[in-house]
Amino acid sequence: MIKKPLILVTNDDGITAPGLRTLIEIMNEIGDVIVVAPDSPQSAMGHAVTIDSTLFVETVKIDDGPQKEYSCSGTPADCVKLAKNEILNQLPDLCVSGINHGSNSSINVIYSGTMSAAIEAGLEGIPAIGFSLLDYSWNANFEATKDYVKSIAENVLQNGLPEGVVLNVNFPKIDKKDIKGIKICRQAKANWKEEFDKRKNPQGKDYYWLTGKFVNLDEGKDTDEWALKNNYVSVVPVQADLTAHHTIKELNSWKLND
Amino acid sequence: MIKKPLILVTNDDGITAPGLRTLIEIMNEIGDVIVVAPDSPQSAMGHAVTIDSTLFVETVKIDDGPQKEYSCSGTPADCVKLAKNEILNQLPDLCVSGINHGSNSSINVIYSGTMSAAIEAGLEGIPAIGFSLLDYSWNANFEATKDYVKSIAENVLQNGLPEGVVLNVNFPKIDKKDIKGIKICRQAKANWKEEFDKRKNPQGKDYYWLTGKFVNLDEGKDTDEWALKNNYVSVVPVQADLTAHHTIKELNSWKLND
Repeated sequence: MIKKPLILVTNDDGITAPGLRTLIEIMNEIGDVIVVAPDSPQSAMGHAVTIDSTLFVETVKIDDGPQKEYSCSGTPADCVKLAKNEILNQLPDLCVSGINHGSNSSINVIYSGTMSAAIEAGLEGIPAIGFSLLDYSWNANFEATKDYVKSIAENVLQNGLPEGVVLNVNFPKIDKKDIKGIKICRQAKANWKEEFDKRKNPQGKDYYWLTGKFVNLDEGKDTDEWALKNNYVSVVPVQADLTAHHTIKELNSWKLND
Repeated sequence: MIKKPLILVTNDDGITAPGLRTLIEIMNEIGDVIVVAPDSPQSAMGHAVTIDSTLFVETVKIDDGPQKEYSCSGTPADCVKLAKNEILNQLPDLCVSGINHGSNSSINVIYSGTMSAAIEAGLEGIPAIGFSLLDYSWNANFEATKDYVKSIAENVLQNGLPEGVVLNVNFPKIDKKDIKGIKICRQAKANWKEEFDKRKNPQGKDYYWLTGKFVNLDEGKDTDEWALKNNYVSVVPVQADLTAHHTIKELNSWKLND
């Protein structure tokens, strides 16, 4: 009998999110599943970790299925650290995060709790994938993603991933029959143009809600934004090395030490 | 009369932090300073932004000096977004973040609130620099950093920065006379090995504190860790494009669409 892979499942929308439930269901088909996920939504948390307060972990059982589940009071990155150090007895063969309710393509990757969990797992030496669907609603339909999620996870289990790299996978919000396939992409150079909604509280004090518009000025056909707009599943290899290597030579020409 | 540059100053240790006070003092010498900083410490916040709660901004005056100061209830990235959209009437000529009490070298960059503010400013089209001193104590001595901070800021004001790039500057915790100069570096491939401190609360429930040890296995002499250990100020050009471009070809060889 072949030993099943051990798969760590997490997310940033919280342990009851339908996207996480879908991901658990798919992973139960290919491995032994341990879920360690935040007890409340942690969207837009970036790569936050909890160093100035305490962390609690509870055994929970949200739905049927053979998976073991733990609910954690921390961030997605905390969940991965806790899973590796305190919950699991061995390094998992794979960590999957998501399926996020909403896009993590392009610049969203740096704000994303979903991807911070995957990046954290990558740093811990665990092959990792973040999955996101371009539909922010709680009742988003994850049906079209299932076969692709399974196939990408199986490929990573089989091939491993290049050193220091995790995958950022995004799905367009369309029916499965309309998906044209999977494209390996680079992160589009896009940005958010903020608009603050300024209001007064009942005591007359100003406060703000952050809102914004996503603006993509990158026309490249090799980008995730292009792929998603043209009905492909986008896969971006993501690394935690933020060095802009191509600019080191230019900066060395500055007279910083004179 | 030459118009002075407009400089936005922020941090993640909070608006009363001595490192921020030092940075304001230095920036007052070269420009008109607006401070928009968190009203409480936001260390290890990563690139979090506040989308699920309200943001408050207060005019404050913490110490003497010509700077205008605003205290904000959000994260460092929120501070930059609010400054640009609601407080300033023009794009600043420079955004400086810090001086952080503690290292943001190597992998710390992805957990860093200080650097998330600089990266956010970069995304908004503002030349930006994060400064950090390798001393976590509140009473850290920032004296040795002053001339370097000023010189690097003036260089950026004069030369601008390559597109999409901000600077991550770290200072060793040594006297100024022992600093050998400034080195342009790449981010060392290092990591944190977590150790969770498990305790029981008065009700008998387990909880954890996250602690850890920084482990650097990267021997490269072109890294920030090498520079700092050898008494240099490290300057890493940092970008928000996380794509591992060098792995796209390899991933394209996978049979993902079969």
